[in-house]
Amino acid sequence: MGRADDIAGRAQYVRRVKTRVGIVGASGYSGMVLTRILCAHPEVELGFCTSDKWSGDPVGERVGARTSLSFVANAQAVEASGAVDVVFLATSAEVSLDLAPRLRASGKKVIDLSGAFRLRDASIYPRWYGFEHHATGHLASAHYGLPELFGPPTSDLVANPGCYPTATLLALAPLLRAGLIESSGLIVDAKSGVTGAGRQAKEAYSFVEVADDLRAYKLLAHQHTPEIAQALAVPSLTFTAHLLPVRRGILATCYARPRAPLADLRACLAAAYEGSAFVRVVAPEAVTLAGVVGTNACHVGVAADGDVAIVLASIDNLVKGAAGQAVQNLNLLLGLPEALGLADLPRSAP
Amino acid sequence: MGRADDIAGRAQYVRRVKTRVGIVGASGYSGMVLTRILCAHPEVELGFCTSDKWSGDPVGERVGARTSLSFVANAQAVEASGAVDVVFLATSAEVSLDLAPRLRASGKKVIDLSGAFRLRDASIYPRWYGFEHHATGHLASAHYGLPELFGPPTSDLVANPGCYPTATLLALAPLLRAGLIESSGLIVDAKSGVTGAGRQAKEAYSFVEVADDLRAYKLLAHQHTPEIAQALAVPSLTFTAHLLPVRRGILATCYARPRAPLADLRACLAAAYEGSAFVRVVAPEAVTLAGVVGTNACHVGVAADGDVAIVLASIDNLVKGAAGQAVQNLNLLLGLPEALGLADLPRSAP
Amino acid sequence: MGRADDIAGRAQYVRRVKTRVGIVGASGYSGMVLTRILCAHPEVELGFCTSDKWSGDPVGERVGARTSLSFVANAQAVEASGAVDVVFLATSAEVSLDLAPRLRASGKKVIDLSGAFRLRDASIYPRWYGFEHHATGHLASAHYGLPELFGPPTSDLVANPGCYPTATLLALAPLLRAGLIESSGLIVDAKSGVTGAGRQAKEAYSFVEVADDLRAYKLLAHQHTPEIAQALAVPSLTFTAHLLPVRRGILATCYARPRAPLADLRACLAAAYEGSAFVRVVAPEAVTLAGVVGTNACHVGVAADGDVAIVLASIDNLVKGAAGQAVQNLNLLLGLPEALGLADLPRSAP
Amino acid sequence: MGRADDIAGRAQYVRRVKTRVGIVGASGYSGMVLTRILCAHPEVELGFCTSDKWSGDPVGERVGARTSLSFVANAQAVEASGAVDVVFLATSAEVSLDLAPRLRASGKKVIDLSGAFRLRDASIYPRWYGFEHHATGHLASAHYGLPELFGPPTSDLVANPGCYPTATLLALAPLLRAGLIESSGLIVDAKSGVTGAGRQAKEAYSFVEVADDLRAYKLLAHQHTPEIAQALAVPSLTFTAHLLPVRRGILATCYARPRAPLADLRACLAAAYEGSAFVRVVAPEAVTLAGVVGTNACHVGVAADGDVAIVLASIDNLVKGAAGQAVQNLNLLLGLPEALGLADLPRSAP
Repeated sequence: MGRADDIAGRAQYVRRVKTRVGIVGASGYSGMVLTRILCAHPEVELGFCTSDKWSGDPVGERVGARTSLSFVANAQAVEASGAVDVVFLATSAEVSLDLAPRLRASGKKVIDLSGAFRLRDASIYPRWYGFEHHATGHLASAHYGLPELFGPPTSDLVANPGCYPTATLLALAPLLRAGLIESSGLIVDAKSGVTGAGRQAKEAYSFVEVADDLRAYKLLAHQHTPEIAQALAVPSLTFTAHLLPVRRGILATCYARPRAPLADLRACLAAAYEGSAFVRVVAPEAVTLAGVVGTNACHVGVAADGDVAIVLASIDNLVKGAAGQAVQNLNLLLGLPEALGLADLPRSAP
Repeated sequence: MGRADDIAGRAQYVRRVKTRVGIVGASGYSGMVLTRILCAHPEVELGFCTSDKWSGDPVGERVGARTSLSFVANAQAVEASGAVDVVFLATSAEVSLDLAPRLRASGKKVIDLSGAFRLRDASIYPRWYGFEHHATGHLASAHYGLPELFGPPTSDLVANPGCYPTATLLALAPLLRAGLIESSGLIVDAKSGVTGAGRQAKEAYSFVEVADDLRAYKLLAHQHTPEIAQALAVPSLTFTAHLLPVRRGILATCYARPRAPLADLRACLAAAYEGSAFVRVVAPEAVTLAGVVGTNACHVGVAADGDVAIVLASIDNLVKGAAGQAVQNLNLLLGLPEALGLADLPRSAP
Repeated sequence: MGRADDIAGRAQYVRRVKTRVGIVGASGYSGMVLTRILCAHPEVELGFCTSDKWSGDPVGERVGARTSLSFVANAQAVEASGAVDVVFLATSAEVSLDLAPRLRASGKKVIDLSGAFRLRDASIYPRWYGFEHHATGHLASAHYGLPELFGPPTSDLVANPGCYPTATLLALAPLLRAGLIESSGLIVDAKSGVTGAGRQAKEAYSFVEVADDLRAYKLLAHQHTPEIAQALAVPSLTFTAHLLPVRRGILATCYARPRAPLADLRACLAAAYEGSAFVRVVAPEAVTLAGVVGTNACHVGVAADGDVAIVLASIDNLVKGAAGQAVQNLNLLLGLPEALGLADLPRSAP
Repeated sequence: MGRADDIAGRAQYVRRVKTRVGIVGASGYSGMVLTRILCAHPEVELGFCTSDKWSGDPVGERVGARTSLSFVANAQAVEASGAVDVVFLATSAEVSLDLAPRLRASGKKVIDLSGAFRLRDASIYPRWYGFEHHATGHLASAHYGLPELFGPPTSDLVANPGCYPTATLLALAPLLRAGLIESSGLIVDAKSGVTGAGRQAKEAYSFVEVADDLRAYKLLAHQHTPEIAQALAVPSLTFTAHLLPVRRGILATCYARPRAPLADLRACLAAAYEGSAFVRVVAPEAVTLAGVVGTNACHVGVAADGDVAIVLASIDNLVKGAAGQAVQNLNLLLGLPEALGLADLPRSAP
């Protein structure tokens, strides 16, 4: 039906049925960004948003999105999902681990933004995530949702990648796959804005403690390390995370030993991302947070001399590193254009 | 024609002819934001963008927008405008003063983001803008483009309001018009992010000089003062601008003597903006930069005790204070829905 | 050789015995800054520092100061004070209200950084501080410790002023006392860095919520309002506080109706602060956070046209607005040079 | 009475004559910090400060320091130096290259903050600094002034180290010298605040371009690379610099292959800096900008697993990375306590 009076002017569609989706955990930062993207998505109808913190409040006002929904409590997630086709889990790994199997059992497609289904080897969950993982069947059937590297989802359970892995893998995977860099001795020195830590009421994340500062954290112990190693198919690598005094954005500076000259590395990346909706190869010093924050883009650049290749990648940790990539996975899962609802997200930098 | 292959999926439209527009000065901060909004606007086709600085460069890459245009030099503005219906001037007042009459003479609609046509009284230009204004006919026929207060454009020359005036007027005008506050003794204490000063290669606007600092500037001499007074129809007021260490956003804290109790002030604002696409009345301590930056929204709130009313308003100086409002004026000028292309701009805060 | 004329009072003194002092609440931001200043003070020996949070930890390492002390628990404050002459209370008003009378009873001098003894009228404490004030004798005998306006301490209980009052009073008091501005209708629009809120583990003070934002808070209800009114001897005034996305610094923009031309206002301020160790009159647009943060300075400037005078003042809320002023009071209480230990604090801006 | 054991070296000295010093280039950020430190230094009398930009202005007001000097033009540097014993050059390498030999010829001690005399091999200057270096005798006789690693100055020409080298060398040199890490394959991923780029009136360093952003710069081409390699006595290493959106501070994250277990690395660093006035070994995640900015401290920490050692170091680029280290060199050159005038610089973080 025509919607000539649509105040946003998203205009007339022939399709009569939009896909109904729900979001569990919509008051976290990823959940909020996801809510905004989905509310503006032309082929999606948002059916419910859960949040204990804002339960009962109008979603649109809290989140800055156009919707007349009100938040429901997290405990109502499974019940609320009865009326939707796809559920996004913007929850902790523990909560996702509980919810995803139940939602799949009732026929829902699940896009999980946590780490609960990203590692294929259940035995390494205790060390990196602090819990035993018994849903091994779901681990095995989950699809690791980094479309540029692993294609469109082939499962109704999508394990949406972590923010650091997204940036790192887009920088390194094409070169590794092509054999242009050594697979041992990889070093990833990554820097992230504070939203990467989620919504926090801790002194350590207070403005006064974080502003004008920089530090490394979870040294040699960050849970994204095995996720990166698995996706790169390398036995190990060195990954360091730093807390930047900015709200959004990741820059990963990756060091590898090259097996080919710089021109070949550049050509490899250019070929890998030719025609990509979101990944763009730029000069290495043009890989910035400012160029990508707010958008679903990833900028990648490479420099090298004889002994070392430096591959840089930048993303918005909440968009390409979380909510945007989740919607990209949704689009592909539904057979829609990959960039639908994502292509016009403006960058935050002027 | 259907556009099934549209990578953004902005879907099928019945209309066959989009309005062609051009932007003069598209490498300034307002011009860049304007370019992004127009590239994503469903009823607009961007015909040209000028910039001396980036002349020849691809617009999309520089600005972060979907377009295959390249920048042309500013000197080509008039020639380039031959193929468009509407020209946006994101230029200095002096350049707009020169270009607008020439563009109107060739039948173009002009939306001017500078101050060149905002003041009705030509005689006060020398003091506040530093030049003589001889295009008095154009001054007389220009429409001051603040739609919530002055309605849709009634002229093919729209003087898009200044950023500080936009916030201040949306806070004060309804109360003044209703006689609920005194018209004398108004004080506006406003704070703006650094993009308000435009793109600058000056030491005074360097990161090191601005970060962690705050100061007042152009004290009792800011050129937005007479614009606010004119639009409020008051003989004078006190306006103070401060430079905030943030990129985007204005908060105006306005002080007035009330003639009615707080409940009446609140009711007046609520009535004035009922159904407004962009202005929302919220609790006064909920008027924040975070709630509006990135969007075309203005948040307004009021507090009062016996002797004083405090009316706060916040906007993104580059969107509702410049580019977004210009597009809002375009929509109204063309008879399109007021929020077309503007409603889904996400806020930058997570 | 003695250098009695050394305005900073460094170097050789005849006194052989340093004054022993203690700090209750040394892990708050004011307490930390106070600890650093006192550890470097040539005539002070720090006897104890209390903190529940860091009890047992080495003070020097936690705070960044040269001392071999370890923190003791707050509950040990009174006992620990046995060995010192002066106790600084960097505590909440409630705790100060309890401790100060007990410390005075045992013969200690007390410099209280809280609001517990600033308001002379006990009856207004419930509204502004939320508790009944029964120590009215102490209220009556406390000295309001703003030396530039109220002289050196005349009591062994010093009520160290609030941060907003310090900036506001230094801006307005000389003009009011001289009758050069009206005493009614005063408006103070103040902006403060986040340390003004103290050490906080709340989401509202998290980096993500505060960065890039600005908002007013405690509108028409800030507890510093009656303190300012009392010190200015005006029945009321309008005071607005805003939360700036910086760690340290206050800028107060004060509006008053002038009774004299600008030159007289300027001359009055210049005379008031001639020879002042810390207050400097500068051009109004040179009143900045950058110029004072890190130091015990207050910069003051004034602008005016016929109807309005704008007086600006900036301070570091933790130094001149708290710890530095407390040490200034200590110096005066002990008959030492006013700037001893304070004159060489470097500003944080490069 | 003398307090020879006072580690900060305040208080009474028998010396009656202070050392007179001058600063060439006192309006740059390093020069300003240097001016403040020297004005508060108990054994120094500042004889002149040069600056073309502020020539004629009072130094104290511009810089925030206690001195009655006025700036003189740079061209007067040699003449002005007639009355002083030591000259600090806070100038570009080209200017230092010209001035230092002339000042030495007239018997002055010179502490040069530029790179003009840091590299022993004159032949590599053209590539890294863009000029031919003909003062090879001065190169040979200059002392590289990193006291913790190279001892007190043994020459009247001190080449004060670069900011990145200072942090990097303090992290890596003890481990390399002890043979506990491999000398090949070293990677230094460093991040610096914007003052590291000096005072800039360029758009690229404007607040709007730098805030909320992060990027690498001078990739594989930073002039500090050969300085680090020379001081570490390694043929090459990989050094990457990033521009942080903060004013001050460097964090260097260094990667090396260990030849010994973590405990040995830690013990080596602890031994190297035992009793050090400025370098402190802390837990690796406690190496922060906040802990050192404002002070002359360097914090160092190490983490390791089998294959990689990560050594982190943080400094204030303007203090330990420039002005503070220059004063440390001055103290040692004059036989004064190493920390005189430096020990009580407070950190900027609350």
